[in-house]
Amino acid sequence: MSEDRPIDYQITDDTKLHRLPERGHYDRDTVHAILDEGIVAHVGLMANGRPVVIPMVYGREGDILYIHGSAASRLLRQGKAGNQLCVTVTLVDGLVLARSPFHHSVNFRSVVVMGAGTFVDDPLDKHRILDLITEHVVPGRIEGVRSHTEKELRATLVLALPINEASAKLRSGPPVDDDEDYVLDHWAGVIPLGVSVGDPIPDPRLTPGIELPDHVSEWSR
Amino acid sequence: MSEDRPIDYQITDDTKLHRLPERGHYDRDTVHAILDEGIVAHVGLMANGRPVVIPMVYGREGDILYIHGSAASRLLRQGKAGNQLCVTVTLVDGLVLARSPFHHSVNFRSVVVMGAGTFVDDPLDKHRILDLITEHVVPGRIEGVRSHTEKELRATLVLALPINEASAKLRSGPPVDDDEDYVLDHWAGVIPLGVSVGDPIPDPRLTPGIELPDHVSEWSR
Repeated sequence: MSEDRPIDYQITDDTKLHRLPERGHYDRDTVHAILDEGIVAHVGLMANGRPVVIPMVYGREGDILYIHGSAASRLLRQGKAGNQLCVTVTLVDGLVLARSPFHHSVNFRSVVVMGAGTFVDDPLDKHRILDLITEHVVPGRIEGVRSHTEKELRATLVLALPINEASAKLRSGPPVDDDEDYVLDHWAGVIPLGVSVGDPIPDPRLTPGIELPDHVSEWSR
Repeated sequence: MSEDRPIDYQITDDTKLHRLPERGHYDRDTVHAILDEGIVAHVGLMANGRPVVIPMVYGREGDILYIHGSAASRLLRQGKAGNQLCVTVTLVDGLVLARSPFHHSVNFRSVVVMGAGTFVDDPLDKHRILDLITEHVVPGRIEGVRSHTEKELRATLVLALPINEASAKLRSGPPVDDDEDYVLDHWAGVIPLGVSVGDPIPDPRLTPGIELPDHVSEWSR
């Protein structure tokens, strides 16, 4: 890590980048930007004494990360107060094609947040946080739907994980080959990747006459 | 799970879909197709007594999943023989916009493979498997690069995880709203998502005159 980068988060043995330390970032702006661009997090927790990784949507509010699931979810209950979680969000930006297989790589931005979660119990808080998660995935959506019912709030678990022990890891740019390999006549470079968005597909049961709202037609990531 | 679906893999308490069992698949064809389409897996393992989730490229050969990393990687060493791993691959196919926030969802296909990994030590095996991982990410690439050196093989850890305790989870199609909500005049439907591919960016140090090969110009997922 270069000396002039800000450090906002706790660096521990598990979040510190030991190899390639120049790829590690521990500042709020970098971590927040990656979390805000992602859609699905991979949540690691212990179940029956073994690590389990499940994809989940999430939301962020300041330095708190929220995940949610069914109150009937056995897995999410494992994340109960005091149990350790690891939430990882990865954005794949490109495939890095080098002149040797060894130096092939991926351009990516990822965040790892570790720590213990707590359940959110207050219905008003839950309501706000579930709206926030929906808005994270589709900004502008909440004005376009009916509100939560009490029954739905009861059926939903919301888990809050403080963003404190956290790090980001970034790779960008062209391949880095061994000096002697640059003379080889293999093509090398980057295939840029991103999220493609198709034309919205209206629900077959959509009431006739309802127009496509801007928050749908303009969705991008 | 519907009765007529084939079951090829071991269903355990951790890979069985307890809720929404109709989304669970335990057959080879479904699991292989998802693994073959993914680029990055999220690998969960225990480090210092806590779950850690890291993104990694991977490859598949029959019912074996391979991940690789630097021999200096502390994390990958945690996956040593006998230690439990969970490898999850998720493809995000669309955002499902319902009339209530509660029924918002994501169309996705994911695979979870659990079990204990073993290190691959034989240099010839390593060579073949590292080629296989490169080919998984960029089919046709291996013919276009120089081969591995002995030093590179020594510097790389390859971990094999049998695909045995595995399951796939799928959601597709339109939102499913509560009956009484279909009369609401909110737009509902799906925003399809996929992987966008930009124009390949040649390495600034690319030898002049090298043309873009087909395996790069035709790459898609």
